[in-house]
Amino acid sequence: MAKSRFEYVREFERENHLLPQTYIVVRVDGKGFHRFSQVYEFDKPNDIEAIRVMNDAAQEVCRQIPDVLMAYGQSDEYSFLLRKDCRLYDRREMKLITLFSSLMTSAYTYYWNVAHPNNLITIDKKLVVFDARAVVYPNFTVVQDYFRWRQADCHINNLYNTTFWALVLKGGLSTSEAEQTLSGTLSKDKNEILFSRFGINYNNEPEMFKKGTVIVREVGKSLASDTPVEDLSNRQLQRLDKVMRKAEIKVYHQDIITDEEFWDSRPWLSS
Amino acid sequence: MAKSRFEYVREFERENHLLPQTYIVVRVDGKGFHRFSQVYEFDKPNDIEAIRVMNDAAQEVCRQIPDVLMAYGQSDEYSFLLRKDCRLYDRREMKLITLFSSLMTSAYTYYWNVAHPNNLITIDKKLVVFDARAVVYPNFTVVQDYFRWRQADCHINNLYNTTFWALVLKGGLSTSEAEQTLSGTLSKDKNEILFSRFGINYNNEPEMFKKGTVIVREVGKSLASDTPVEDLSNRQLQRLDKVMRKAEIKVYHQDIITDEEFWDSRPWLSS
Amino acid sequence: MAKSRFEYVREFERENHLLPQTYIVVRVDGKGFHRFSQVYEFDKPNDIEAIRVMNDAAQEVCRQIPDVLMAYGQSDEYSFLLRKDCRLYDRREMKLITLFSSLMTSAYTYYWNVAHPNNLITIDKKLVVFDARAVVYPNFTVVQDYFRWRQADCHINNLYNTTFWALVLKGGLSTSEAEQTLSGTLSKDKNEILFSRFGINYNNEPEMFKKGTVIVREVGKSLASDTPVEDLSNRQLQRLDKVMRKAEIKVYHQDIITDEEFWDSRPWLSS
Amino acid sequence: MAKSRFEYVREFERENHLLPQTYIVVRVDGKGFHRFSQVYEFDKPNDIEAIRVMNDAAQEVCRQIPDVLMAYGQSDEYSFLLRKDCRLYDRREMKLITLFSSLMTSAYTYYWNVAHPNNLITIDKKLVVFDARAVVYPNFTVVQDYFRWRQADCHINNLYNTTFWALVLKGGLSTSEAEQTLSGTLSKDKNEILFSRFGINYNNEPEMFKKGTVIVREVGKSLASDTPVEDLSNRQLQRLDKVMRKAEIKVYHQDIITDEEFWDSRPWLSS
Repeated sequence: MAKSRFEYVREFERENHLLPQTYIVVRVDGKGFHRFSQVYEFDKPNDIEAIRVMNDAAQEVCRQIPDVLMAYGQSDEYSFLLRKDCRLYDRREMKLITLFSSLMTSAYTYYWNVAHPNNLITIDKKLVVFDARAVVYPNFTVVQDYFRWRQADCHINNLYNTTFWALVLKGGLSTSEAEQTLSGTLSKDKNEILFSRFGINYNNEPEMFKKGTVIVREVGKSLASDTPVEDLSNRQLQRLDKVMRKAEIKVYHQDIITDEEFWDSRPWLSS
Repeated sequence: MAKSRFEYVREFERENHLLPQTYIVVRVDGKGFHRFSQVYEFDKPNDIEAIRVMNDAAQEVCRQIPDVLMAYGQSDEYSFLLRKDCRLYDRREMKLITLFSSLMTSAYTYYWNVAHPNNLITIDKKLVVFDARAVVYPNFTVVQDYFRWRQADCHINNLYNTTFWALVLKGGLSTSEAEQTLSGTLSKDKNEILFSRFGINYNNEPEMFKKGTVIVREVGKSLASDTPVEDLSNRQLQRLDKVMRKAEIKVYHQDIITDEEFWDSRPWLSS
Repeated sequence: MAKSRFEYVREFERENHLLPQTYIVVRVDGKGFHRFSQVYEFDKPNDIEAIRVMNDAAQEVCRQIPDVLMAYGQSDEYSFLLRKDCRLYDRREMKLITLFSSLMTSAYTYYWNVAHPNNLITIDKKLVVFDARAVVYPNFTVVQDYFRWRQADCHINNLYNTTFWALVLKGGLSTSEAEQTLSGTLSKDKNEILFSRFGINYNNEPEMFKKGTVIVREVGKSLASDTPVEDLSNRQLQRLDKVMRKAEIKVYHQDIITDEEFWDSRPWLSS
Repeated sequence: MAKSRFEYVREFERENHLLPQTYIVVRVDGKGFHRFSQVYEFDKPNDIEAIRVMNDAAQEVCRQIPDVLMAYGQSDEYSFLLRKDCRLYDRREMKLITLFSSLMTSAYTYYWNVAHPNNLITIDKKLVVFDARAVVYPNFTVVQDYFRWRQADCHINNLYNTTFWALVLKGGLSTSEAEQTLSGTLSKDKNEILFSRFGINYNNEPEMFKKGTVIVREVGKSLASDTPVEDLSNRQLQRLDKVMRKAEIKVYHQDIITDEEFWDSRPWLSS
């Protein structure tokens, strides 16, 4: 039973420590959520209850991982920003991403079951699975552009889905007819279809659908100090950790693409 | 809303494609399971119901991922062996490990809740979280030694825990007294304590506790063919996939360290 | 001058330790050798003296790095095979590849200058530069196919170049006319052009040109022992090192694509 | 000769594209330069001619690679800073570092042989070899601290070597006696030994020895523009390349640890 005889196998293990002083974004993404939404009978184009489960789960992730400064969610994905001096798991990539994928899975399952006592998640129907990836960004401009990219994606998808399901549910088209109708159309064409055929002004659609969900840890002040983080004492690091844990976690449905005020009023996001 | 203006952020994404023609082992590991076992009141030293939940969850992982050839579990960890020609997710490391961590989390939560209707997993108590890592091994000897290493670890831990909890539960020692008693002892000393003080012959303990759990996809024949896998047609690959999906998944509690028969009788494990 | 205040910058350094028990191939490749061959006035299609400089340089690399088991060179590239238990520089990728690129550069420069006292390498004309890359292969079949790939490449290039320069030097075509003539031709077409227009039987061309150069460390027996390499004592490792250093380094121009005898008679290449 | 049958081996090749928008520092380091300095009979503690060869070689590297903004050299090492938007070789790590190690080797060999016609580099004596590594830094503060770290290292080493060789060459100590004398001494102790025993005021030693060598591409203005580099047209990129190629390359021996003026007057270094 000499364990040591086999210990050499550890030499094959590899770690990727993410570059220090860079912003880490972890994006979790639902696997097979198209089918998941059918099996659990989501409302179309947007199921408010399902979105709330996603948002509740993401908030739980933020609560449990105090290094998360903000998060952005839309459709079946959520992106979490970790502060650039985050030392969680010594910045080991595999540890970080599996923590997020697993915790998101656990929290989603929990909140779903609480909200749907008559439509519980079961193995026979389909389990929830989230994959995750980590990306590091060396400066905050790219981080902002990352979140703008996701919100632009939300807009494009939601406008499409809103029009598609209007054509199907209100216009009586089959899904493939709706697809054909929208093939090659621009944003303004979809707006026009919504308005002229169904009297829907897209601008009046709920912000939650159009903008997705922004979660912010409202720290309220810059985390940066004159002391470089590598010189902070353990006591100072603990104080920082405490500040993060105590900060309120708030939820918004607002523009983060052009609204500089969102970013300017929260200097700690880049600190 | 020009999404394309922000698309450059994708250049920061990195992928690690695991080396082709190597065996991939993914190990999932419970996070904070010591506290989990306290919160959900596990029997000590081994909680049969909790072990069954682990094993049920791992079997579900095997069912859903047909490239898994075998798995080995003990304590709060499970290791899954993927066949060396596995092309799942194009062998992208992040995709693979988050799939395993998330699916294990989902399946564990499901089976736990089914088995413990009066002790459901809740956020207030504690959610289940599994991390995961992938390691590649270039030849099957190292793969065998990897699994031997985990089973040797199982033996060492279980002998310790069995003795420790005998001292506490039957011997009336405090946990710190039990710890002191065992400090520096060898295997034979623990066997002696168990036998002389508590009349326990460790050899008679349940195999499930002593050996952990081995799950095998009983394919029944070598997967290797004269044709190198990169030359297989799509049809041949589909046939292979079908063979994997149809193969029975069986559970054992047996020695895999010295029992060469286990390995010799299953040539497909290395193919 | 407190150096320690700045030492934190070391945290940004990354190492890639190449997977243990895999074959490492390092390929060096001349940078800008097309222009180099013009500046230093190489004979076309093959400059025997320049090939000899390459081969001499590669042999020096083999002499200085005893873990090299064989090498294969053609055109301005050379591939070196390191034995699978090689521990040079702890298998750190950056150390390994820069050692090969630098040593090849040094040796090439030295041998060139010795062979061409009236055509020395100078900065004004052009310096020699080799890049290098490392690739790991998990089994010896892929290693063989790697070398076969390079020799097949040699054949294709040399047949093309031989025909191209026959058209230019003997046929009086301009280089662009020769290019057009060969565009879209198959091997048999080039053989036909050589034979019918210039009376050249390609099969009779020198083996050095057609096959490239194979360098073998003729160890003479398998390096493998019953003891796994991780269990070898330092003394055994030193003995192995001595065997490698003493083994004769020989040069061949022969087929390694279909000639199984080459491989079968040298079991140590895979050990 | 079907090359394509073997082409699958390319799947084993891996590339590490260095993170965009980060500063790349490549450090080349002489291999076995202690022995090199003995074989080629360097003056001790500093051989001016040998330092000049290093500096000439490094300048040639700067000339040939226009993305190098500055370099710092001391002892047998040189560090090169590439601008953060450098796209050389698509930022492939292996290509980059082997280019530097090879080019440094070529240029060093050339300049050495020009300067030492009676002490040429030969294989029988010893070839020049440089290894190289690349490190990326996400912000310019760390880049500055990196160069400060190397200059602090230069100071520590040079003070030691100056004292050591004074003890040996002027004080008549053996090298091991000198080593013992210096064991455990602080900077002020070494200064005191130099002054009291040998009348040497360390402050009056040549700047080249005390500070090492700084090479700057004197671009003269910031390279940054309002347009993010990913949006620059090819024409703008070519113009930038031309600016870099035309900029004068100058050599200094000065403090870069505390002299903020050095950095402040060269805004392009961080751009």
